[in-house]
Amino acid sequence: MSQSSLTYGDFTLPGEAGYEKLTLELAEKWGADTIRDSDGTQLSPEILDSGKAIYSTLCLVRSVQPWAREHQNQLQQNFLMSLPKIAARKTLTITPLEGYYDEQFVLNVSDNPKRWWQVFDRTTGQEVPKRHWSVNTKRGTVTIAEAVPGHTYTVNFLAFRIWEEISMYNHLTNNWGDREHLAAVDPMQPAVQKVILRFLDGWLDEHAATTVVRLTSMFYNFSWFWGSDHKTLRDRYTDWGDYAMTVSPRALKLFEKRYGYALTSEDFVQGGRYNSTHNPPTARYRDYMDFIHDFVISFGRECIAKIQAAGKKAYVFYDDHWVGVEPSSERFPEFGFDGLIKCVFNAFEVRLCAHAKGNCARELRLHPYLFPTGLKGEPTFAPGGNPTLDAKNFWIDARRGILRAPIDRIGLGGYLSLVEPFPDFQDYIAGVAQEFRRLKALHAGGKPWTAPFKVGVLTAWGDLRAWTCSGHFIKGVELYDVIEALSGLPVDVEFLSLADIAENGVPRGIKTIINCGAAGTAWSGGEHWADPAVEANLTAWVQRGGGLIGIGQPSALAQPGRTFRLAALLGVDQDTGDRLANGKYKFTPVAAGEVDGLGQHFITSDCTQVPVEGAQVHGLHVLDGDTAVLAARGSEPTLTVRAAGKGRSMYAAGFSFTPENTRLLHRALYWTSGYEAKWSDWNTSNVRTECAWFPQAKQLIVINNDGEPQTTTVKPTGARKAVTVDLEAHGIAVLDL
Amino acid sequence: MSQSSLTYGDFTLPGEAGYEKLTLELAEKWGADTIRDSDGTQLSPEILDSGKAIYSTLCLVRSVQPWAREHQNQLQQNFLMSLPKIAARKTLTITPLEGYYDEQFVLNVSDNPKRWWQVFDRTTGQEVPKRHWSVNTKRGTVTIAEAVPGHTYTVNFLAFRIWEEISMYNHLTNNWGDREHLAAVDPMQPAVQKVILRFLDGWLDEHAATTVVRLTSMFYNFSWFWGSDHKTLRDRYTDWGDYAMTVSPRALKLFEKRYGYALTSEDFVQGGRYNSTHNPPTARYRDYMDFIHDFVISFGRECIAKIQAAGKKAYVFYDDHWVGVEPSSERFPEFGFDGLIKCVFNAFEVRLCAHAKGNCARELRLHPYLFPTGLKGEPTFAPGGNPTLDAKNFWIDARRGILRAPIDRIGLGGYLSLVEPFPDFQDYIAGVAQEFRRLKALHAGGKPWTAPFKVGVLTAWGDLRAWTCSGHFIKGVELYDVIEALSGLPVDVEFLSLADIAENGVPRGIKTIINCGAAGTAWSGGEHWADPAVEANLTAWVQRGGGLIGIGQPSALAQPGRTFRLAALLGVDQDTGDRLANGKYKFTPVAAGEVDGLGQHFITSDCTQVPVEGAQVHGLHVLDGDTAVLAARGSEPTLTVRAAGKGRSMYAAGFSFTPENTRLLHRALYWTSGYEAKWSDWNTSNVRTECAWFPQAKQLIVINNDGEPQTTTVKPTGARKAVTVDLEAHGIAVLDL
Repeated sequence: MSQSSLTYGDFTLPGEAGYEKLTLELAEKWGADTIRDSDGTQLSPEILDSGKAIYSTLCLVRSVQPWAREHQNQLQQNFLMSLPKIAARKTLTITPLEGYYDEQFVLNVSDNPKRWWQVFDRTTGQEVPKRHWSVNTKRGTVTIAEAVPGHTYTVNFLAFRIWEEISMYNHLTNNWGDREHLAAVDPMQPAVQKVILRFLDGWLDEHAATTVVRLTSMFYNFSWFWGSDHKTLRDRYTDWGDYAMTVSPRALKLFEKRYGYALTSEDFVQGGRYNSTHNPPTARYRDYMDFIHDFVISFGRECIAKIQAAGKKAYVFYDDHWVGVEPSSERFPEFGFDGLIKCVFNAFEVRLCAHAKGNCARELRLHPYLFPTGLKGEPTFAPGGNPTLDAKNFWIDARRGILRAPIDRIGLGGYLSLVEPFPDFQDYIAGVAQEFRRLKALHAGGKPWTAPFKVGVLTAWGDLRAWTCSGHFIKGVELYDVIEALSGLPVDVEFLSLADIAENGVPRGIKTIINCGAAGTAWSGGEHWADPAVEANLTAWVQRGGGLIGIGQPSALAQPGRTFRLAALLGVDQDTGDRLANGKYKFTPVAAGEVDGLGQHFITSDCTQVPVEGAQVHGLHVLDGDTAVLAARGSEPTLTVRAAGKGRSMYAAGFSFTPENTRLLHRALYWTSGYEAKWSDWNTSNVRTECAWFPQAKQLIVINNDGEPQTTTVKPTGARKAVTVDLEAHGIAVLDL
Repeated sequence: MSQSSLTYGDFTLPGEAGYEKLTLELAEKWGADTIRDSDGTQLSPEILDSGKAIYSTLCLVRSVQPWAREHQNQLQQNFLMSLPKIAARKTLTITPLEGYYDEQFVLNVSDNPKRWWQVFDRTTGQEVPKRHWSVNTKRGTVTIAEAVPGHTYTVNFLAFRIWEEISMYNHLTNNWGDREHLAAVDPMQPAVQKVILRFLDGWLDEHAATTVVRLTSMFYNFSWFWGSDHKTLRDRYTDWGDYAMTVSPRALKLFEKRYGYALTSEDFVQGGRYNSTHNPPTARYRDYMDFIHDFVISFGRECIAKIQAAGKKAYVFYDDHWVGVEPSSERFPEFGFDGLIKCVFNAFEVRLCAHAKGNCARELRLHPYLFPTGLKGEPTFAPGGNPTLDAKNFWIDARRGILRAPIDRIGLGGYLSLVEPFPDFQDYIAGVAQEFRRLKALHAGGKPWTAPFKVGVLTAWGDLRAWTCSGHFIKGVELYDVIEALSGLPVDVEFLSLADIAENGVPRGIKTIINCGAAGTAWSGGEHWADPAVEANLTAWVQRGGGLIGIGQPSALAQPGRTFRLAALLGVDQDTGDRLANGKYKFTPVAAGEVDGLGQHFITSDCTQVPVEGAQVHGLHVLDGDTAVLAARGSEPTLTVRAAGKGRSMYAAGFSFTPENTRLLHRALYWTSGYEAKWSDWNTSNVRTECAWFPQAKQLIVINNDGEPQTTTVKPTGARKAVTVDLEAHGIAVLDL
């Protein structure tokens, strides 16, 4: 690899008018081949003419102001559920929009409420007959005429959104005062499509210097319903993957025509839970997602074709208005995007980006953003901040993922002028860019070594929500911790849905399956376990030699006498309180090794303390003496292993992403797969370090994920001798073997 | 009240042959009017002729040995579920009794297994057709011919019990070697009834000196299934209130004839949970309980009539074989018992005894039993023991209940000889007997004062399981703590079932209702909340002015968007993980008073620390700003109050029985009922003390529930002045006002 290839290219720099010199200097220092604008910055002619590629951001659905405000019935809309209200007497009046932010929502009474809205008696769960309620369009109220005192009622209704959420968020966060409220138009309306396409033609004409159109993103934002009181309950509902904000009578009519059945408001409202990604999707909702995905591809392709016909590339931002884009869908390549840009805090987001189907370029937007303060208001590029240390910490998190999966480009966003007083930051980013280019080149030479078995992560969603749960990391949703651990390990991972297992069993090559999550969630699987074929196929597979890792409340779907559907395989079940009278097996924990309270076992060999996890799961117990208890909380097992037929299983009451826990999971993958004899191949002795072996390049990369210097030893396969490496804090070593 | 009435009567002393002098001395000292035998002791002629009443214990169903062993098909039996087994191929063989104690159970193959047994595919939840399985009676196995690999199967089967459980427990606990294993006969068999009645005739003839037959108890023991390995899993299933051990083909046939429908094995087995009292009963099981209760009354009456015809009284022990006796049933008086004896550890058991319907004498068996060691093996009447302190602590626990509800007699059990070296114990019991007689006399003069409102405790069972959950106190089942608190408070309490509320609404006089327990349990209500009339009637009642106290997971029965059915009234709900995407209201806690972290409020006024309860309930959140948060764990409310329409509610994440928490609950009853202006009437200023005002006698009793001296002030109603009393440790004061 030539040195020059390490110092130039694959780097997107945010330019800033008024700082042309700095822009061009840093473009040189960081080897940027591309300059972008950001929200709040402009590129001046001097920058546009610098010979670099130029990214320009564009959000089509909010691009057509003031037309949008002049055509309110062409705005995007969604179903909302009114706040529950108890009937005191036979007549009950509900103000549907009460509690919602009136600058975001207005009632849609232009589409016939009697056709689209529903009123529910939530006490009985039954819909109130339409003849029993009426809408006062002037007052914005619904009156139920035959209410039962003591029953609780809600109204599912349609509301137009008059302020697009990202505009709203930026506006209110930055106190933009009387700056325009942008509204998002509904791209499924024929009139809107005409307006957007006409706008796009003009925009392309006006942006001659632009080489890459960075779409933000396509048409529908993730769901975000704001409350009226921003102090106490601003986010009444927000989900990164929910299709709630795609709904309209037009969409519902087209859906019915296509699928032969009609969806109702309750299919979207779900008693106020909406279709959060954290919950197992219904079959009807999955149909609807497919329907919208198809539409977004279809109209999206039309827009992308125009962009490409204008000689520009089309990149899409994998956030904001990404709903319906679905980069993990097999259909994603139909869009014809040239690139996909993901903002990353964690390694799993790197893998999410890499996992997109098709061949478009993968670009990461790294943190920190060039803003004065970070996400929680802490100083970054401001007095008291240490942006270099921030950058190092973000980089070591993301780097683990880049080590395992190919990424094409990286870049930054924000106000470039802010980095001027931080020369060490400028230096560090130059180094990051070089590290990135080295890793990219290695991937280009061939896939890095991975373990001789594949791992399956089993959820209700499967591959469509691979390498994420719903958006960025959420503490307490342990599957995030698990995928963050996996995203830096040398193992091939597939994401499987319960429906996949029911239909086709476990795919060939997979030797161990992880099911992790809280009961009822999409991650554990919830109602999707009701199909007995899932349990049957998995059970038969484990009995024949498969591996199973259950974390939290795996396979939980209560039936009398059993909570975990895979309890017999795990040898552990949870008594949620209905088996108080059933005695619990009194286990003898596995004898401890060097760590008090932690059973000595292959999987715990690198632990220096007892993993204390799963504080929210109570009533755990082992089924019999075949379950080996490695750790316990009083009489409740928190870490166990078991032989299950010819297979093996591990249960952990919880999991959090730490170096030691990542190692424990890594070992558990080997042990449950029955590959523990191969454990020492290409693994580091020090849990704070990781390595990747690139067999084609014959290069070994060793990384230090820690903020202190570390020493580690790697045992290659075959006759090669073990290698010991000293790494500086956050360091990387490249060894030719 | 004359002094003499305080020194004699209403006391049952356990006599012991060989210690005649001690027996008669202590009879004099303690004022015993009655002498009893105990398990392992005899009464000699000198004692029998002492002029005291004589209790003799008798357990009819195990009285007819060796006839019982010679007629195995006349023994008691029950359904058991085999351990779940996974099919590896099409043929699966299960050994039903595997894992069960073979000295307790043998297979019943004399009643046609194809008629009575069931095989279940627990993966699908479906019964396996009877033609697909067969029984090998010689090997004691069941073979399933059409099993699906990967599915889990169980066999529900009938087993005779060849060793009666109390005999088994005493035998094994005391290492009785080759002493006879007593078996219990099935009283529903006509042949058994003949044998028992003939035996009873003979027994009555032989026990001329006996004045009271103490039945232990009637016919069916509480359920107790032992495992094969007593070290790791002795109690496979044990429930104080389950009717499992009453089952037989004869009972099932008679049931079908009476009720017009047939019960199946699964009605009893419930997937291995059986019908634990902790779970909400099914309607079918409730029918079966009524059927057995009817039989126990019917045949019991026949036995009792013989006893009474012999000039003796019939007392029944409210434990052991008490199933079907049901002292809380309206039909209980039909037995015609002269007395009911309850062994008590706690005040709620005193109330349980007092709560029996009808007019039979209520007698308490106090602790400590006169044994060398206590229940957990700690020394009592042995070196290192302090039986006097034990007696004081048990007495102050029970006394709170005796203060509130009339009890007729007390007594002890065990080996009297053991008390000889403990003169201070002898003195203390003499004092206890006097205290008891004083309280009994006060109750005889009229009911003590209670608050001007009634309290309802709402469970799936209602009054049938009033003043207990299932047997003695179990830590972690918080309703025990609540009823233990209530049992010593000056409030009238009714126990209501969810079905009562659905059918009749809230009874008149009740001003506040408590619902306390874990989701799914009989205490919280579980599936019984599925009847919308419960929620509707309670909601309407609270809205009109009722009070509601929810503890733990009150009214929990999940539906989309709501976990607590009464969430709107409590202003608190629990997100079990399916509403992660729904924002939670950010509350401002009520300003603290003298205790950091505890909101100042009427109900917290006597707290000196934050009650830390409900560690097992996660995901708690308030609905809006109308819920006042008095205590929180991070962002989760753990103690809240709210106005709900014209009513009031309180929510607590948990409850444990302590003096401060009892006071908090007491205040909460007043506050939710809207009676806080009456709070100071007849309450003590010191939470470690309690008082009872007997208006007819014009006497105020003040008790110290603490092991240290206490001072307290009581404010009488009306113009009377407050009284301040100094009490010694465990002490009592009697004041004429």
